[in-house]
Amino acid sequence: MASQVDLMARKRAINTFFEKFKVLIDKIRKGEEPALEILSRTKANVVYDSDKKMLMPGERTILRKFLDKGEAKKFTNTLLMASLIYEALLNDEYPTIRDLYYRGKHTIIYRDLRGRKREENTWDEQKESDALIVDVEVYTGMLREEMLILSKEKGKVVGDMRIRSGDDVIDLSKMGHGAYAIEPTPDLIDFIDVNAEYVLVIEKDAVFQQLHRIKFWQRNNCILISTSGQPDRATRRFIRRLNEELGLPVYVLTDADPYGWYIFSVIRSGSINLSFESERLATPNAKFLGVSMSDVFEKNWLSPKERKNVIIVAKDRDIKRAYEMMKYEWFKNSPKWMHELKLFLKEKKKLEIEALAVKGLKFLAEVYLPQKIQTKDWIE
Amino acid sequence: MASQVDLMARKRAINTFFEKFKVLIDKIRKGEEPALEILSRTKANVVYDSDKKMLMPGERTILRKFLDKGEAKKFTNTLLMASLIYEALLNDEYPTIRDLYYRGKHTIIYRDLRGRKREENTWDEQKESDALIVDVEVYTGMLREEMLILSKEKGKVVGDMRIRSGDDVIDLSKMGHGAYAIEPTPDLIDFIDVNAEYVLVIEKDAVFQQLHRIKFWQRNNCILISTSGQPDRATRRFIRRLNEELGLPVYVLTDADPYGWYIFSVIRSGSINLSFESERLATPNAKFLGVSMSDVFEKNWLSPKERKNVIIVAKDRDIKRAYEMMKYEWFKNSPKWMHELKLFLKEKKKLEIEALAVKGLKFLAEVYLPQKIQTKDWIE
Repeated sequence: MASQVDLMARKRAINTFFEKFKVLIDKIRKGEEPALEILSRTKANVVYDSDKKMLMPGERTILRKFLDKGEAKKFTNTLLMASLIYEALLNDEYPTIRDLYYRGKHTIIYRDLRGRKREENTWDEQKESDALIVDVEVYTGMLREEMLILSKEKGKVVGDMRIRSGDDVIDLSKMGHGAYAIEPTPDLIDFIDVNAEYVLVIEKDAVFQQLHRIKFWQRNNCILISTSGQPDRATRRFIRRLNEELGLPVYVLTDADPYGWYIFSVIRSGSINLSFESERLATPNAKFLGVSMSDVFEKNWLSPKERKNVIIVAKDRDIKRAYEMMKYEWFKNSPKWMHELKLFLKEKKKLEIEALAVKGLKFLAEVYLPQKIQTKDWIE
Repeated sequence: MASQVDLMARKRAINTFFEKFKVLIDKIRKGEEPALEILSRTKANVVYDSDKKMLMPGERTILRKFLDKGEAKKFTNTLLMASLIYEALLNDEYPTIRDLYYRGKHTIIYRDLRGRKREENTWDEQKESDALIVDVEVYTGMLREEMLILSKEKGKVVGDMRIRSGDDVIDLSKMGHGAYAIEPTPDLIDFIDVNAEYVLVIEKDAVFQQLHRIKFWQRNNCILISTSGQPDRATRRFIRRLNEELGLPVYVLTDADPYGWYIFSVIRSGSINLSFESERLATPNAKFLGVSMSDVFEKNWLSPKERKNVIIVAKDRDIKRAYEMMKYEWFKNSPKWMHELKLFLKEKKKLEIEALAVKGLKFLAEVYLPQKIQTKDWIE
């Protein structure tokens, strides 16, 4: 019943699991202590690689040992998670990270050295089981999507391209007023053919709907993507593949506020928590098209009167966020980004993409976006 | 450039606006006071119609007058909003509710009776402009979607059916591992042909992804819909049309908690804030399939040990929510729902759909869902 690509992906993942964990069996057979060597995922072991323009894991590894009082639980939990995923692969299942949390959550009853009966839970919170899934990703070198672990998805796409997903060929230019909702395992998509000059990624789904409705992608020969806020992993991987495999430039449009800029930052460089995944999920060539602070305060897109009506006073948390971002290496070493952040902290004002609608949707679609792209008025 | 259905929808909306607001011009020409008679939208004017099984507006109307100190601002603001929407229709635009907020937000400078210069904003917060949009909906008898006002969308669908949207025919059985993202104006969709016995609406997108991936809709001959939490208007309207026009039974699957039951309640009976819209958006025949409290505590779907591992302690806000729901007429008069709510308040525990995954995805797909449907084990 499952599609051919899923069968093959399943086989690949099963083989990788087998290879990677066979090491432990070999060790046990040789009478050696079973232990897993895993890349350290502490913040101290995350570095910003300025050549790659991505957050990358450092070289430090940790040794998770079975015969170590402090490590034993983490070791057995890691193996428990790996076995849950492996079983799901063998049983033709598609678990979610929430499923895996539930499947592994149970109470272990044991007797301590003095013979007293004791109880201990494998885990209580999902963040504990999620961290173990990342450990399994890091150890096996596979993204969880390659293990056919599914998740909630919110990314959408339209444009003049054909893709193969599962057993179907889908024409992304024939979605009517709706859109194609990206699958949770975007590595299994085949790009068949594409007729586009660039990719426009939009933070706000309502703005995506508007631009789609006036066929912006057709008129401007581009692929339109909606992230609906902070993009999920599948959307990030899909964007990265469009850039890397098809060579399409990627432009990002967000609100003019620290939250919007952080969305761009995650698309471009990855996130600190998932530095291991950056190399697959980040798009280091992505450009921030707007809305920038300099668009709002230093250029003439809006008249002073228009600006007055649409500008919003920044909240304390926006300001706190901007100060944090000033410390990030990839912002710190970019004069353009530092100018943006300083301008924001001086004005203490923000603006939404929709605010440009005071001048009509045509202003956004026919003036602002094309001019920004044509004059290369973006920030890297 | 716009699709034919959009051109026609635009023409219809323009004509309705013209008819409805011409009344005011006629009054002014006759020397009468301009005033708008609008259905009152206060909570006191919302009634639960037990025959229709929907929340409906009562009969009380308010008269919004121009020559009334207390009403003048609301009157002019209503006309300002109506004119913004009308202009957008004439200019081939597709505004969002956020756009309309920005477009109308400005400061009016005037002199009072003593000749002093004064300033007043049309509106400050979006909730004010949103309320005016609902007033225009109620006054014109059109949903905002019929005025081509767009919004963020999160509903998805797959199944063996063909629809026409915009200028395209889309086969919802050929979406690969992805899905079709429903458009913001679902009344403009044409159902071409459908081969399905029922509609399954799922609160959790991750569960939708899982059931889609094992082709649940194909094996069970149904349409699968993901609402991603509380369904938006377009998803609700789409579900209603599948039920009303195609005669398909609608089953709803949510978490076993007050938030999940409220999602069902909104799908079935509408929301108090939008009683005017209920008649178009609600699906009074929808059935709550699960997960019910009686599934968790009175039936043998889960063993006591399984239940122990997956059950979650209810939060204070869940309990508060359940007490509120006990006062809603459509719950109050349903012995089955009262039993559910009382069981919840007795146990003070909740459960997520994903918790059933402790028994494997096949349990959900091949045992729980088919048995619930076959034995009609649902709540209305």
